[in-house]
Amino acid sequence: MTGARKQTVPVSGARQFLEPGPVILISSLHDGRANIMTAGWHQILEFTPSLVSCLISNGNHSFEMIRESRECVINVPTTVLTDTVVSIGNTSGANIDKFDHFGLTRVDSSLVAAPSIGECYANLECRLHDDALVDRYNLFIFEVVGIQAVISPRYPQTLHYRGDGEFMLSGKTVSRRHLFRPEML
Amino acid sequence: MTGARKQTVPVSGARQFLEPGPVILISSLHDGRANIMTAGWHQILEFTPSLVSCLISNGNHSFEMIRESRECVINVPTTVLTDTVVSIGNTSGANIDKFDHFGLTRVDSSLVAAPSIGECYANLECRLHDDALVDRYNLFIFEVVGIQAVISPRYPQTLHYRGDGEFMLSGKTVSRRHLFRPEML
Repeated sequence: MTGARKQTVPVSGARQFLEPGPVILISSLHDGRANIMTAGWHQILEFTPSLVSCLISNGNHSFEMIRESRECVINVPTTVLTDTVVSIGNTSGANIDKFDHFGLTRVDSSLVAAPSIGECYANLECRLHDDALVDRYNLFIFEVVGIQAVISPRYPQTLHYRGDGEFMLSGKTVSRRHLFRPEML
Repeated sequence: MTGARKQTVPVSGARQFLEPGPVILISSLHDGRANIMTAGWHQILEFTPSLVSCLISNGNHSFEMIRESRECVINVPTTVLTDTVVSIGNTSGANIDKFDHFGLTRVDSSLVAAPSIGECYANLECRLHDDALVDRYNLFIFEVVGIQAVISPRYPQTLHYRGDGEFMLSGKTVSRRHLFRPEML
């Protein structure tokens, strides 16, 4: 996947990557150290600005890094990375450098200092937009300021967590475009 | 699906239904009238209490119904309902009774007045927990107070929206339970 060429995607298109509910890897940088965490509790909030909310538990090493740096990258892994996704969730950035430890490629992002993960098929660069619910729910509201993504295949297989160690894998894509009122698309 | 027996599931298990990111149908009741809307922007926030956030645009007829009644049911449809899911999103409860119009079965919920949709495989009964972000983002935070779900098949095929009229269908489920540290499960 690192070899696959990525292209810039309009930030309003964040939904195509996140709305189906994949597991994500959140990368961050603070005080010169990078980190990665696995997460699955996120949603789209708005197209313009492109807003996404994401729960980052305050037990994670990434919590303070992202709260302080006010930036991160939401990386969307494919099933090629299944075991790595679990292992990243099992370990803490307080003890290891996860890019090095898991052999992931640290790619410079376009608009944020936090590095993107080369092996993930989509990299959504984010700035912290609203921290009003961080204290109460650990809920961060980010603005997606840039997206780099592999265009072909358009929809590689993604992981969707169910709890209890089980992942749903993405299946085929079907269109019902002809049934939608134009303003609903 | 209406004929399939449903069982009570612990509310802390909401993630198995919602975390993989399916399209949902939100049913509500206010002033004696029921309504249904299609939605896809939701996430899990907490296990205990069982909290879920959900974006309900203020352009929807359901918005005021749910804000006023402070209740709803999050119903998870299977692919059998694909065309109905689109049609519900195309129409407004201001003009039609969606249960009648789409031939859906209005099932009494256990703990809320809002009816559940019989044809959906899981019904998560919700009470409004926090409306702090409703004005700013149309974001409702609900507590899941009861879940009724079809137990077999455990994972029927669900719909996951990508935008542009395209749905990703759920694929197979794989376990990596052996790789998880016990406290991560």
